Amino acid sequence: MLRIEHLGIAVKDLAGSNDLFAKLLGELPYKTETVESEKVSTSFFKIGESKIELLQASNPDSAIAKFIEKRGEGIHHIAFEVENIENEIQRLLAEGFQPTGSSTQPFKGADNKLVFFFHPKTTNGVLIELCQEIK
Amino acid sequence: MLRIEHLGIAVKDLAGSNDLFAKLLGELPYKTETVESEKVSTSFFKIGESKIELLQASNPDSAIAKFIEKRGEGIHHIAFEVENIENEIQRLLAEGFQPTGSSTQPFKGADNKLVFFFHPKTTNGVLIELCQEIK
Repeated sequence: MLRIEHLGIAVKDLAGSNDLFAKLLGELPYKTETVESEKVSTSFFKIGESKIELLQASNPDSAIAKFIEKRGEGIHHIAFEVENIENEIQRLLAEGFQPTGSSTQPFKGADNKLVFFFHPKTTNGVLIELCQEIK
Repeated sequence: MLRIEHLGIAVKDLAGSNDLFAKLLGELPYKTETVESEKVSTSFFKIGESKIELLQASNPDSAIAKFIEKRGEGIHHIAFEVENIENEIQRLLAEGFQPTGSSTQPFKGADNKLVFFFHPKTTNGVLIELCQEIK
């Protein structure tokens, strides 16, 4: 684990939340991106070596829509940058952490990253993302 | 806002969660601390320029106990390090963000910091801490 790559925050209205976080952080988002595979629209703010990623559902059956329905807006996941995502997935599986899906392979996520998720039920209620930049 | 100083994670059993996060992050907590004023026992892990702070209630009427009762274990707050906490509090109050309490002055928190909190109702469901090292 190298650093907190980003924090994912589930929001209902991306445009409104972009304004809110621009006021909070004192700067504008540097990028917006739609991730079709995850059914989300996202925006990114830089803060030190990390980022804040705002996520709005682009479809009512996306994980973000379900999260907001259940818990309201708020912090959805922590993403850690790792050096070798395949090795790190294997290490954490061996430690007993459980993936969110049935696959144990990383897949392409937002922001040009290979990503993988571990389920909050084995991590104190915190959805954990591993990510590694695609070179 | 200089960086994510730490993420606060509410846990029920600090010893068990120390083990869990040691496995996840691949290292032991570097410090534990009890903060009487906040009625919490805490431990800290380093990750890049940030920290993970685990928080266990030391009293049933602490904010952490109430959070867990309502939402279960999980991410409780994001703390941003700032250069001048008084100026940053005034800037955010002027932007319309609301404090968690009635005071607009910072107070002494864990880890030798002056701290201040903004209420999640004005920040997309995210409890925001500002903090500045006491020199």
